[in-house]
Amino acid sequence: KKITILPGDGIGKEVTACGKKVLEQIAECFGHEFVFDYAVIGHDAIESTGDPLPEETLTKLKNTDAILFGAVGHPKYDNDPTLKVRPEQGLLKMRKELGLYANLRPIKLFDELLEASSIKPEILRGADILFFRELTGDVYFGERGRKNNNETAYDTMIYSKFEVERIAHKAFKAAQTRKNKVTSVDKANVLESSRLWRAVVQEVAKEYPDVTVEHMFVDAAAMKLIQNPRSFDVVLTGNLFGDILTDEASQIAGSMGMLASASVGDKVGLYEPIHGSAHDITGKGIANPLASILSAALLLDISFGLKEESETVIKAVEKTLQEGYRTKDIADSSTALEKILGTEVMG
Amino acid sequence: KKITILPGDGIGKEVTACGKKVLEQIAECFGHEFVFDYAVIGHDAIESTGDPLPEETLTKLKNTDAILFGAVGHPKYDNDPTLKVRPEQGLLKMRKELGLYANLRPIKLFDELLEASSIKPEILRGADILFFRELTGDVYFGERGRKNNNETAYDTMIYSKFEVERIAHKAFKAAQTRKNKVTSVDKANVLESSRLWRAVVQEVAKEYPDVTVEHMFVDAAAMKLIQNPRSFDVVLTGNLFGDILTDEASQIAGSMGMLASASVGDKVGLYEPIHGSAHDITGKGIANPLASILSAALLLDISFGLKEESETVIKAVEKTLQEGYRTKDIADSSTALEKILGTEVMG
Ligand SMILES: CC(C)[C@H](C(=O)O)[C@@H](O)C(=O)O
Ligand SMILES: CC(C)[C@H](C(=O)O)[C@@H](O)C(=O)O
Repeated sequence: KKITILPGDGIGKEVTACGKKVLEQIAECFGHEFVFDYAVIGHDAIESTGDPLPEETLTKLKNTDAILFGAVGHPKYDNDPTLKVRPEQGLLKMRKELGLYANLRPIKLFDELLEASSIKPEILRGADILFFRELTGDVYFGERGRKNNNETAYDTMIYSKFEVERIAHKAFKAAQTRKNKVTSVDKANVLESSRLWRAVVQEVAKEYPDVTVEHMFVDAAAMKLIQNPRSFDVVLTGNLFGDILTDEASQIAGSMGMLASASVGDKVGLYEPIHGSAHDITGKGIANPLASILSAALLLDISFGLKEESETVIKAVEKTLQEGYRTKDIADSSTALEKILGTEVMG
Repeated sequence: KKITILPGDGIGKEVTACGKKVLEQIAECFGHEFVFDYAVIGHDAIESTGDPLPEETLTKLKNTDAILFGAVGHPKYDNDPTLKVRPEQGLLKMRKELGLYANLRPIKLFDELLEASSIKPEILRGADILFFRELTGDVYFGERGRKNNNETAYDTMIYSKFEVERIAHKAFKAAQTRKNKVTSVDKANVLESSRLWRAVVQEVAKEYPDVTVEHMFVDAAAMKLIQNPRSFDVVLTGNLFGDILTDEASQIAGSMGMLASASVGDKVGLYEPIHGSAHDITGKGIANPLASILSAALLLDISFGLKEESETVIKAVEKTLQEGYRTKDIADSSTALEKILGTEVMG
């Protein structure tokens, strides 16, 4: 099996190094052979090739069995909105070119981290949400530009029926293996693309009579996620709303540093933490590698069907937390100083 | 002074009745003369006239001194995304026609409600955020439609420089009377309209050297609001992101039922709770009227310059909470049963 490591920018490099080590260890323990290669993307790729997703990277990704990705982004571009070539273009193009239309973001709290969240433990306990964020449509990929002498800028929020259908089926099927509930999030009281979204989800829902479907406006969902996270099971939503809500939901898991995601669709699967490149802590050796390690666990499970191997990784994370080890982002006032580890040691 | 009451749908009617009573009481105590009239909007207006914002309503609103508004919306439309005439169209048209481009949403926690929130008290204590949500642009007002034989739906996210400028100035000026910090929220790593937004805010910021400006992506903001609400002072953002983030931020104030908002711009000011029509509790007499009452306080202050009168209303709310009275949404396990009041008694 071929695994391509795509470290990207910022802490992406530090955390994927740990994810890779875990995959190597699994290969050794279980007698698999994983062949690794590397490719560049993002700011990193712009610096070395001028292109945030060089042809060479794309070719590699199209010919691999699974991808372990870090993050992209750089403050240089954030501070200068006029730059034309940007790291995120590499990420978006990759998602589109590889047909990665479904981004699965499981939000599950490790019991040991109940106290690390800003939300009250009694609200959190037992929360377990699986987000299906659509990843190759919406305002991320619609036409955009300037008009009116550069005085006006626009982006197009756009969805077609087939795009909603295919991810809706995935979400309903997943709900059948969980608590049989799908909450579809849109803004159908204002947006035409949301009205299409809602109508399609209503249609697809008819094929899953055992699954309860609920439609919620995005503003209400942003509130309810915090107020009552346990009321959600599977959440199905578009690209932009999914971006916002899953970052928010990271607070349910105590820290962004714990959350893994899987992007699947046509063929190859891509696995990445939901956190970003975090340049403020890059190079300090304090980034939490657990999201990347848990992304590796998702990779083993979803792309390779290696359930036991995947479970082994998750249990190892659990055990480490039970033994009291923390990175800085998930430490609390009760954590002993010598149990606060850097990226590499935690890895 | 003429005040138009616009109850709208659902609990809008119940809560504005309380807001009005408070305004009447203030008039009596302080010797002012307020003349009230009523107008219809939303589902209510569709039922009686076929139009969610009848001409008669618009004429009244253009000739009044201030508006106390309830909410619009009805489950009938939410369940049928194909209906062409919708309550929310009335609200959006009203905002546009009256030039209400700046929606101010103060998020402030009454100390008595620290325990009502799902967020930990130690995270919340002292949080005090003032949102400036742009209200007459963005994807709410861009071109939308269907193409491709109805298989594809689109909306246009769009901003022009002057729209960003005028609300940015308001936000920076407000920051100067507060903690001198503005957090501008966008998605400039993906959206062209956000890149314009960010560039304009950077320009405007130069005129306020005493104000610290910070730019944040909307996904990060959705997370930080929960993780560290005290790190925000003034938050400046577009129409859609503002819609999502302010609803989320309602959890910082313990309940949506406590939050008032002011919409200002060209001339007349409009005051409304940030909560919606809440048909699930309509007619039960349990809606929290405090958001409407606090909206009335904003009306006195912003539209009429009656600071003392406004303060009197806020103090009355504070005193009521101190005495232990609660509506159901803000009661907790320590609230005595006889202190849980219905809408009217609380009003
Ligand atoms: C980096 C950015 C373009 C990206 C997104 O918005 O999709 C990130 O926030 C994510 O969630 O993967
Ligand atoms: C009812 C709806 C159209 C409205 C909006 O999205 O602006 C509401 O959510 C609000 O925040 O005032």
